Amino acid sequence: MKVMVGGTFDPLHEGHKKLIRRSFSLAGRDGEVVIGLTTDTFAKAKTHPVHPYEERKAEVEKFIRDQGFAATFTIEPLVDRYGPAVDVDFDALVVSEETLPVGMEINVLRRKKGKRKVDIHQIACVLAEDGKWISSTRIYRGEIDPQGHVLK
Amino acid sequence: MKVMVGGTFDPLHEGHKKLIRRSFSLAGRDGEVVIGLTTDTFAKAKTHPVHPYEERKAEVEKFIRDQGFAATFTIEPLVDRYGPAVDVDFDALVVSEETLPVGMEINVLRRKKGKRKVDIHQIACVLAEDGKWISSTRIYRGEIDPQGHVLK
Repeated sequence: MKVMVGGTFDPLHEGHKKLIRRSFSLAGRDGEVVIGLTTDTFAKAKTHPVHPYEERKAEVEKFIRDQGFAATFTIEPLVDRYGPAVDVDFDALVVSEETLPVGMEINVLRRKKGKRKVDIHQIACVLAEDGKWISSTRIYRGEIDPQGHVLK
Repeated sequence: MKVMVGGTFDPLHEGHKKLIRRSFSLAGRDGEVVIGLTTDTFAKAKTHPVHPYEERKAEVEKFIRDQGFAATFTIEPLVDRYGPAVDVDFDALVVSEETLPVGMEINVLRRKKGKRKVDIHQIACVLAEDGKWISSTRIYRGEIDPQGHVLK
């Protein structure tokens, strides 16, 4: 299968890792994963500072190489909420609880363009030690580390 | 992974087959699939007649055996919308576009009970030749066959 997933991935935390791992397992050995990585301009909308695109890309690539996934992959710049997911042919989109609405919107837009809907795989957010979601904002605030350990 | 999926599966059409195939591929070689099959009493709510539980179960089992999936599986009676999915430990629920709301409700109920949410994999409905969903109701009405060919 051809699977798409998107994000800012900064810092790369356990939630992101689950999202990427699941994308590769869904794609299967002979599949393909396209990772949309938000551009610095698009990521500016975040409430916290974000590392430059090339640094974030290197982190994601390193994680993928370390995991030794079989499927092929590409990392592409994501300039808006939807990126190429509205226009290109693919099979499944992997989203988090936060981004499920974006996935549903993508399918609505695809139908309007006469393209077939894609399957949507929503992963449940990974919880930190304190039972709340692991998120980049919480890591930036120093509440938790990227593995979800409570810091204060 | 342990994956759950539910349905009436009558007649077993291409949409159901996609749902079952995806459940097994998500589960993986060492995984487990639990198929909740609606009881005759629960399935009575359908707008069309439904074959008896044991006949439907035999059809699903035959399809699974023919596909030669690696994961183990069980077929269990489903007596209501949620079945055991609210209470038992598992990893992912596979739903169709029609049953996504049930999946979301299951996660809300799980959180209320202090259980962790599960991942939700929504497959896009399979389209018949005429571009509309393949559904048991349309097959019963004689509009299409279980493979989605238009009959009238």
